[in-house]
Amino acid sequence: MAITVVGSVAFDSIETPAGRQERCLGGAATHFALAASFFTDVRVIAVVGEDFGPDQEAVFHKRNIDIQGIERAPGKSFFWEGSYLDNLNEAKTHNTELNVFASFEPKIPDAYRDSEFLFLANIDPVLQRRVREAMPQAKLVAGDTMNYWIKDHRDALKQVLKGLDILLINDTETRMLAGNNNLVQAARGVLGMGPRMLVVKHGEYGATAFYGASTNGLGAKTFRAPALPLEEVVDPTGAGDSFAGGFFGYLASQKDLTPGAFRRAMFYGGVMGSFAVERFGTERLQQLSRAEIDERFSQFRELTHLD
Amino acid sequence: MAITVVGSVAFDSIETPAGRQERCLGGAATHFALAASFFTDVRVIAVVGEDFGPDQEAVFHKRNIDIQGIERAPGKSFFWEGSYLDNLNEAKTHNTELNVFASFEPKIPDAYRDSEFLFLANIDPVLQRRVREAMPQAKLVAGDTMNYWIKDHRDALKQVLKGLDILLINDTETRMLAGNNNLVQAARGVLGMGPRMLVVKHGEYGATAFYGASTNGLGAKTFRAPALPLEEVVDPTGAGDSFAGGFFGYLASQKDLTPGAFRRAMFYGGVMGSFAVERFGTERLQQLSRAEIDERFSQFRELTHLD
Repeated sequence: MAITVVGSVAFDSIETPAGRQERCLGGAATHFALAASFFTDVRVIAVVGEDFGPDQEAVFHKRNIDIQGIERAPGKSFFWEGSYLDNLNEAKTHNTELNVFASFEPKIPDAYRDSEFLFLANIDPVLQRRVREAMPQAKLVAGDTMNYWIKDHRDALKQVLKGLDILLINDTETRMLAGNNNLVQAARGVLGMGPRMLVVKHGEYGATAFYGASTNGLGAKTFRAPALPLEEVVDPTGAGDSFAGGFFGYLASQKDLTPGAFRRAMFYGGVMGSFAVERFGTERLQQLSRAEIDERFSQFRELTHLD
Repeated sequence: MAITVVGSVAFDSIETPAGRQERCLGGAATHFALAASFFTDVRVIAVVGEDFGPDQEAVFHKRNIDIQGIERAPGKSFFWEGSYLDNLNEAKTHNTELNVFASFEPKIPDAYRDSEFLFLANIDPVLQRRVREAMPQAKLVAGDTMNYWIKDHRDALKQVLKGLDILLINDTETRMLAGNNNLVQAARGVLGMGPRMLVVKHGEYGATAFYGASTNGLGAKTFRAPALPLEEVVDPTGAGDSFAGGFFGYLASQKDLTPGAFRRAMFYGGVMGSFAVERFGTERLQQLSRAEIDERFSQFRELTHLD
């Protein structure tokens, strides 16, 4: 099944202990689309400026990603500058220029309208909701958000959550959204807001899926996927979006959404996140092969399974 | 096989968001011994003061733990007072009174001398080394330490590490010991100091075992066990020692130390840690049954396994 993703396509200037890179191709929709493209057809809705040229287009085309939904607008693309010098788990933002993104009005190409999977990457919840309503045929809808929307745009976000099947956010966002410091209690609070499944991303410690109501408070309805302990993390930017792309891309490739499919999807999410951080920006995802992905999936199994 | 453990037997006054308890029975050797006692015979070497009476003895006797190696000295037992009000993952120490522990000279009862498993809980590395040398028959030796010894008693600690088969410490201690912020690189550094296996405890995120030299830098020689996402953490005190007790106790109960036995031991460690935090002090371990342990082991498998 094809996935349509709406979100940012951007340029990132990134500094980490491994070095500095200027104006890498980035943005949540970019990382998501590249990661998901190893599993299924992907279509992108976004806006870019005049600085988005043939080199950037080629990155999507090489992975057979449909970008007719990427609108070109006068001006510059969204730009983010940040560093991870003190802490690889948390970016320090130095500069954010919304540019063409400030007046983004998502337009959905007719060719996208049969997408049965829809991913609402981290953008203004008002836009997320508009896209969701414009694509009523979508059978499985997942999305992401961030502290800024949770804190200052809660009402709009709550409307989005009502229409989501799966929400993917991190530990801090989960606690903030529910107003509860205990992760299990917070997860239950978030599930009460609409999503049928919550995937909490723990960075280097993996991710946990919460779904349904736990009957015994002891994690009967939870599944935890690991992250691979890595020798070197070059650039954490986009790891969470790559996780989401692997997770949702794998689900979209499955004929039946069985519990086993969700478990494997959690592992594929972790696999794609672990590749993403090995190089700056999207470099590693651009160079990846399906064989490498499946080899790492086996390593994840070996890393966690009793036999 | 029997385990001998040397470490603290103490009283703890603990404050957490769940409440406050005065002078619970505590200490690393206590938590370890109770957790390990569900799997094998356990013998304790420690020192206590005149405040250690029949009520405390009964806790050990009910679990068939041999305490003839707990010396009674004039004065008071080791006492610790701490809280976890801001952060359940890190204790804030308000008061530490070494009392009889200040002049502790471990004495090994003859009846302990056939112990093939030896656990050196977190105490002065000079004492850890002395006990290890006094028990040359021990075939598998594991131990713990903490930031204080890593920082200010590094030379003595390094002597201990040379004689250890397995070191169990947390993320921060691993990074501090190796002087490296990347966990995988730090783990390799620690393995170069002597231990054949390093178990890094991640608190609510589980634990990772590193062993042997990784040939591809991608975790070929790692194993990650989860922690159970818990509705309520009443008191984290002793969770790490309980993990160690479950881990080492299970190993000591096995005829052959196969790779599978180590994997299951990691899971049993997580299981015992997850029970320990459900009540103050050692309350939960005192009330536990082997059936509950095995039921939770199954939950851990369900939580992490693809099928």
